[in-house]
Amino acid sequence: MSTIQETLQTASAAYAASFTQGHLALPPAKQYLVLTCMDARIDPARAFGIDLGDAHVIRNAGASAVDGLRSVVISQQLLGTKEIILVKHTGCGMLTFTNEVAYGLVEERLGPAAVEELQEKNLDFLTFPELEAAVVKDVEFLKASKVVPDSVTISGWVYEVETGKTRRVV
Amino acid sequence: MSTIQETLQTASAAYAASFTQGHLALPPAKQYLVLTCMDARIDPARAFGIDLGDAHVIRNAGASAVDGLRSVVISQQLLGTKEIILVKHTGCGMLTFTNEVAYGLVEERLGPAAVEELQEKNLDFLTFPELEAAVVKDVEFLKASKVVPDSVTISGWVYEVETGKTRRVV
Repeated sequence: MSTIQETLQTASAAYAASFTQGHLALPPAKQYLVLTCMDARIDPARAFGIDLGDAHVIRNAGASAVDGLRSVVISQQLLGTKEIILVKHTGCGMLTFTNEVAYGLVEERLGPAAVEELQEKNLDFLTFPELEAAVVKDVEFLKASKVVPDSVTISGWVYEVETGKTRRVV
Repeated sequence: MSTIQETLQTASAAYAASFTQGHLALPPAKQYLVLTCMDARIDPARAFGIDLGDAHVIRNAGASAVDGLRSVVISQQLLGTKEIILVKHTGCGMLTFTNEVAYGLVEERLGPAAVEELQEKNLDFLTFPELEAAVVKDVEFLKASKVVPDSVTISGWVYEVETGKTRRVV
């Protein structure tokens, strides 16, 4: 067992020992979803005030709405959420490289077979050069998508990893 | 402003007021990633013992490794993580329907243009009929992928929404 796995088991046992929320239902009680980045410096529950059972939390590299669309559709059409909170953040890794750089790095480290596997999947790393513009672009993508009904409320935000603050962009 | 947005602003202001971790670095300090479901009943930080800054947390409908592959590659090749903890959970929505049912529901609710948009993207809802088997299958997918090096440690787990416990599958 790795150290990480041991830590998980210990923390999990302590969490379960005082767990009292086994009654929560599958559909999010507050009928919303948060789409944010996988960044290690974000704790959505605490930073955005999400109580257990209240909201879906979708996380991927860069809080990409394009990459998260499958989960958004499932959240809305199968589990009844009606509002989207999109949160990107300062200091995001996706601001620091391009698709070309990422593909180059994969080739250098993992060889041409890895690049081929990504190309077969048409994988786009979905990087972005400017933070606020990327928030606006992703909100517009969701609003324009035919799989997100016009009745859904969508807002776009930036979380500041330096201050712990979240501010609204759109 | 919606009630959800107001709650976010209030909670965020309180969080920022006592925030002391603005010094954390971009790469996860403990060099691992957790891939789990967007389900509202999971709080990965508390349930799996993840301290702020320690690990990437990728979340999508069903904790799908196929859907999360882009984020996994970025986490490993650009931000240096070396271990994957995959956690699916009991009572997952992805156990309750099939791709056909999901497409049917989208058509019924949003019309043929929405279905077309999903089909153009080749969208697979990536449902699964059996929980433990799905954990094994996703771990095998990651191990077989050429974009995940053999040196990466991968384990698969199930979180029980009824008890708060996390148990290892593979």
